[in-house]
Amino acid sequence: MEWISKSNILIVGLGLIGGSYAKALKRLGYHISAIDKDEETIEYALKEKIIDEGSVTIDENIISSADAVIFALYPDVFKKWICDNQKYFKPGALITDVTGVKSCVVYDIQNILRDDAEFIAAHPMAGREVYGVKNSDDAIFRGANYIVTPTDKNTEGAVEWCKTLGRILGFANISVLSPEEHDKIIGFVSQLTHVIAVSLMTCNDNTDLVSYTGDSFRDLTRIARINENMWSELFMLNKDVLLEQMDIFINEFKLIRNMLNTGDKEALCDKMRLSTLRRSYFDKR
Amino acid sequence: MEWISKSNILIVGLGLIGGSYAKALKRLGYHISAIDKDEETIEYALKEKIIDEGSVTIDENIISSADAVIFALYPDVFKKWICDNQKYFKPGALITDVTGVKSCVVYDIQNILRDDAEFIAAHPMAGREVYGVKNSDDAIFRGANYIVTPTDKNTEGAVEWCKTLGRILGFANISVLSPEEHDKIIGFVSQLTHVIAVSLMTCNDNTDLVSYTGDSFRDLTRIARINENMWSELFMLNKDVLLEQMDIFINEFKLIRNMLNTGDKEALCDKMRLSTLRRSYFDKR
Repeated sequence: MEWISKSNILIVGLGLIGGSYAKALKRLGYHISAIDKDEETIEYALKEKIIDEGSVTIDENIISSADAVIFALYPDVFKKWICDNQKYFKPGALITDVTGVKSCVVYDIQNILRDDAEFIAAHPMAGREVYGVKNSDDAIFRGANYIVTPTDKNTEGAVEWCKTLGRILGFANISVLSPEEHDKIIGFVSQLTHVIAVSLMTCNDNTDLVSYTGDSFRDLTRIARINENMWSELFMLNKDVLLEQMDIFINEFKLIRNMLNTGDKEALCDKMRLSTLRRSYFDKR
Repeated sequence: MEWISKSNILIVGLGLIGGSYAKALKRLGYHISAIDKDEETIEYALKEKIIDEGSVTIDENIISSADAVIFALYPDVFKKWICDNQKYFKPGALITDVTGVKSCVVYDIQNILRDDAEFIAAHPMAGREVYGVKNSDDAIFRGANYIVTPTDKNTEGAVEWCKTLGRILGFANISVLSPEEHDKIIGFVSQLTHVIAVSLMTCNDNTDLVSYTGDSFRDLTRIARINENMWSELFMLNKDVLLEQMDIFINEFKLIRNMLNTGDKEALCDKMRLSTLRRSYFDKR
């Protein structure tokens, strides 16, 4: 059984992901505190023993006693929180996060952070279409990927700590990418897929199709149930990459449209054979 | 418990869908025969008692003793089969099918069919990414939709017979559409989604992304594992409708691209709210 140092852990933002972190880490025996602006959230988490301590305000005692702080906030709120409250961090504190975009967050936070603290960024690639601590469940981490995105400023010790955190949370696959590599990949596998799902749902009034649909349409639009505030912010923060990925997709889609339009069945079959081959690598193992 | 008349049933084409029909109907007590050109298929189906009788050739006895014939063949093969072999049909035989496109099949078959037989078309909206009788399983019909597509030539009795067939096979939802309405809806919910999944898989070499992907990408590309012969034929046979649906999707996708490009976060949020609302109707009940 692995173990991380920094056993007094503060989670800032106790939503679906923050709550799932809390449940996993508390069960492993870590001391878990949480700060969340929503009173019902903190009351629920204390009552359900998801956390040991909690506050709806900036509680100096809680912050200064944490060896490690995990931020599960929207990117802009995250930066402001660090500016306003980092003065309370314990010297040597290790900071990590769960933000879905990296380049626009990691360097800024590392630049404003106190010299005696270290920020090592990570992206847990798990989620659900429901929100809040009441829906949190660390089962969503099983079989999922976890990406650590260090920069030159990070120590090897912090990178290892963060990878171990991913493993003890239950992620199946831990990898390390630069913030830029991360954002490019996420622009494709996550953001582009959300744009496609939303476009499918909004391109015409299709609500009368419920009785005529198969699993294909359900699968392609599962993620069309989307938290608009979070995702529009994530899209904007990764705008250039996402626009590029959207263009790559549109071009391919138009190429296939042209094959259909000209009746080039053999070219269509070639695309489908390639698609079938590539997709086979993605089955969960 | 419902029951269909025509209790001696012949299935032509014993693949995934034909085999699943056979399993469901045999269990209900119907006499099931099958014709399939593949010897291993017929041997396997007899050994596993999926069918009562089978042949790899055009067996006059089997054909002429069937009260109902279910065709689970590709559209072009289906038409040729009717031309060549309808002379063996029992007078009064009821014919149905499982073809995924309708306008280009239904009228042609009805026009060439003997006057003393009736063709009532249906589309069982179920499938898997694997093929053949060995993978057949009528559990795929549970919770799924089944569409009957009659024309002016059909009798009320045949339409009712076909709807009952869908119900006893285990489909959750039986509906009736004209062939044209069917093809338009299928062009959107099924064919367009397959084009999108294939485009996502082929638009760049993404096989190295396995370690970095979340469930979104897996969901949107599940159907990218595709039977190229069947689907390229289905696309071609519904070409005009599919091209139109692709254009509607491209236009919406470009509209959202423009919102991102101009930084119109509020418009993006509006699209996402609409998407979330509409998707909620599609959760299986």
